[in-house]
Amino acid sequence: MISVNQQATKIVEQMVAQAEALGVGVSTLARGTRVIDAGVQARGGLQAGKYLAEACLGGLGEVNFLPLDFDDFWLPGVSVAVSQPAVGCMASQYAGWAIKREAFFAMGSGPARALSRVEELFDKLDYKDEADVAVIVLEGRTLPNDDVASYIAGKCDVSPAALSILIAPTACVAGSVQISARVVETGLHKMVELGFDIRQVTSGYGTCPLAPVAKDDLHAIGRTNDCVLYGGRVYYAVQAEDAEIESLIERLPSSSSRDYGTPFYELFKEYGDFYQIDPLLFSPAQALINNVASGKSYQAGQINTTILKTSLIEGKT
Amino acid sequence: MISVNQQATKIVEQMVAQAEALGVGVSTLARGTRVIDAGVQARGGLQAGKYLAEACLGGLGEVNFLPLDFDDFWLPGVSVAVSQPAVGCMASQYAGWAIKREAFFAMGSGPARALSRVEELFDKLDYKDEADVAVIVLEGRTLPNDDVASYIAGKCDVSPAALSILIAPTACVAGSVQISARVVETGLHKMVELGFDIRQVTSGYGTCPLAPVAKDDLHAIGRTNDCVLYGGRVYYAVQAEDAEIESLIERLPSSSSRDYGTPFYELFKEYGDFYQIDPLLFSPAQALINNVASGKSYQAGQINTTILKTSLIEGKT
Amino acid sequence: MISVNQQATKIVEQMVAQAEALGVGVSTLARGTRVIDAGVQARGGLQAGKYLAEACLGGLGEVNFLPLDFDDFWLPGVSVAVSQPAVGCMASQYAGWAIKREAFFAMGSGPARALSRVEELFDKLDYKDEADVAVIVLEGRTLPNDDVASYIAGKCDVSPAALSILIAPTACVAGSVQISARVVETGLHKMVELGFDIRQVTSGYGTCPLAPVAKDDLHAIGRTNDCVLYGGRVYYAVQAEDAEIESLIERLPSSSSRDYGTPFYELFKEYGDFYQIDPLLFSPAQALINNVASGKSYQAGQINTTILKTSLIEGKT
Repeated sequence: MISVNQQATKIVEQMVAQAEALGVGVSTLARGTRVIDAGVQARGGLQAGKYLAEACLGGLGEVNFLPLDFDDFWLPGVSVAVSQPAVGCMASQYAGWAIKREAFFAMGSGPARALSRVEELFDKLDYKDEADVAVIVLEGRTLPNDDVASYIAGKCDVSPAALSILIAPTACVAGSVQISARVVETGLHKMVELGFDIRQVTSGYGTCPLAPVAKDDLHAIGRTNDCVLYGGRVYYAVQAEDAEIESLIERLPSSSSRDYGTPFYELFKEYGDFYQIDPLLFSPAQALINNVASGKSYQAGQINTTILKTSLIEGKT
Repeated sequence: MISVNQQATKIVEQMVAQAEALGVGVSTLARGTRVIDAGVQARGGLQAGKYLAEACLGGLGEVNFLPLDFDDFWLPGVSVAVSQPAVGCMASQYAGWAIKREAFFAMGSGPARALSRVEELFDKLDYKDEADVAVIVLEGRTLPNDDVASYIAGKCDVSPAALSILIAPTACVAGSVQISARVVETGLHKMVELGFDIRQVTSGYGTCPLAPVAKDDLHAIGRTNDCVLYGGRVYYAVQAEDAEIESLIERLPSSSSRDYGTPFYELFKEYGDFYQIDPLLFSPAQALINNVASGKSYQAGQINTTILKTSLIEGKT
Repeated sequence: MISVNQQATKIVEQMVAQAEALGVGVSTLARGTRVIDAGVQARGGLQAGKYLAEACLGGLGEVNFLPLDFDDFWLPGVSVAVSQPAVGCMASQYAGWAIKREAFFAMGSGPARALSRVEELFDKLDYKDEADVAVIVLEGRTLPNDDVASYIAGKCDVSPAALSILIAPTACVAGSVQISARVVETGLHKMVELGFDIRQVTSGYGTCPLAPVAKDDLHAIGRTNDCVLYGGRVYYAVQAEDAEIESLIERLPSSSSRDYGTPFYELFKEYGDFYQIDPLLFSPAQALINNVASGKSYQAGQINTTILKTSLIEGKT
């Protein structure tokens, strides 16, 4: 069976070998956990973000940069091609493990989740990793200490010295890259929310603009969400009944949500609470599904250049 | 001299090492031939298709995914950059070896052709491989047995255990990828048909949309051809006389054929026979040639979004 | 500290290992200097140009091919993503070392410059390489001899046998690739000219069309410049004061120059002297800067399809 943690560990080793070129900081905690900083104290950059994203996908996805044109402006973006999307995106990349440890809090994503399996989501996936190494990705601004590392390692049943923690804040270049590289995962997660069995998805591909780094992490959460919700495009090859896709496709893009149409940061301010926002908003702007069983194709949604411009270029929010 | 079979064997070894991640099946026949299944019983996927295509090119081309925009719809596509196009595309990638063996029939493509050299085409190429390993790509739905493998190995003058057979049906994701990755080859083949000496082509680059997988292989043949004929774009750097290119350029794109303008599946039904279709139809939609000897550039043809939409998105055929 | 020469040496070794596939010539001078010819006597090609460009960037940039659309025509182009742009682009890639040796003259670029440090520019960079290997890139049509090689090696304080010289004329496919891959560097150099401290630039990304090869090197200089000046796009992540960027952004694109708007070859003919051309012309057509300190984005300039078409497709100059 594929081990997303073993595959990610190889990517982490490449990051360590090129640390200076990538602008990442590498340190080792007292109990041996390796910490790779791609934007807290270190500068990071585009390529650091690419490695971060590919590690987060457990080596099952390929992330590349490309220019994206939006009427009267352009932005650099990423493309992501994923084999085994249920494993690469949902068992590995999804940010579903809330790590709380005294004062420390961060959302954990990446392959370590497939070792700890503390989330209900794993009931819907056939995958369990059994590696003796673990890689976790944290989106945050506080570097983890030994206590946090030992807690994560313990949940993964590996020694602290076998754990690598990759960290980048939302508001940094590598953070923008790793979040936009979640575009295929975001659509898959929405499928899960809508009751679609994502083990039927055999390949995924998507593109998403990179959020210009914001002045603080909260504004960056706004922009990075806007990139996916208003600028993300996904393609999925699935093997399913046409009826399942017919009932899915119109509900899949972000435009199907009651909260569609307001830059994310404003929405957050209105609600005052992340968890009040419609969970069905979290999806790419545009989706294309090819049912390989029937040969039919389904598409819904559109890129929203107005909101992208307001949020990403004019920075009005 | 470059060995396209040795280069392809390295790519096959990467496929075997990542078989589970790529979704390919690996098996070994009794006499030792390795069979890599990228879509018959296995699921395959985008990345399996990429490896398949790069092996087919004998390691002389680089295949990447990119989004392609067509007025009111988009599709994932591939780009392919080829060094030594006469060798990579024609001596290796072209599907020119009809393999018949009792009940078994498949068109063979890839590096093994440069060992067997059973096709007249090789009279126009200076290339012969002398490797003691062979890699062949089959587009089909019947897994080869030992008899087929020994026949291929025999024609290549290698032992059955030194042969790798890669197979994918037309109607699967990896099949769509490997066919669209033929866009540069298709234009070169048309050049051969038009009497142009392709050893004068020093570099090739092209893009082509990926056909959404069709309900059966015959419909998939229609769609994958439509991708190249109506959505393929190629660029060639050549070293030739301007007069040669002037007489070539307008005849190069598919639009120069009497059979242009009908989705391929319908055309096939009309003729009832593949070999009645105008051979000059088989070419990319749009071509750009730069004569490095004179500095002049020549272009002809256009993307046909109407036919692409009918065939690929609406699936009307 | 990163060594751009060590990183480039690894890329050169890959070029040597694949010399025939890449179409590059490899020879060794009497005192041991390795010469890689990507377009003088050898054919070179797209992939040779990609390796050449990545070596020139000292391994700090990733170069890929992509199609670029311009109203009624398209061209293959390159994208370049650079980590550590001050080092990769300015201390390494920039063509700033005029190498004169009796009859021999060529502009030298690439990592060797960070060993010789003969240019004033290095006063503005914190970087010095201390490798015992050196890689230099020459844009020219005269293969270097032992005397030239020993001169370069001496300035770099390495033995001639530790030096690799990569060479390609302007008018060849690999030359077009390596020049268009300078698009991020060209914008950085303009920043230096405008007094901006480029050590504040943390990431760079850009795209640029590939110049169709011209009939001679002088016309090729015209076309390759037009690609950057009228077709190049760049994005920079910087950490600076907003006021610095506000005073920079409108002056950054080529359109801010008094000499903007005439195909480069014509301009050269008008002035009759390269050094009479406004130095501020040399910059990409369009620039986007994200200040990661403030979260603001700034853009200026536009692609000029009219001049691109005149120069690159119609070849009127």
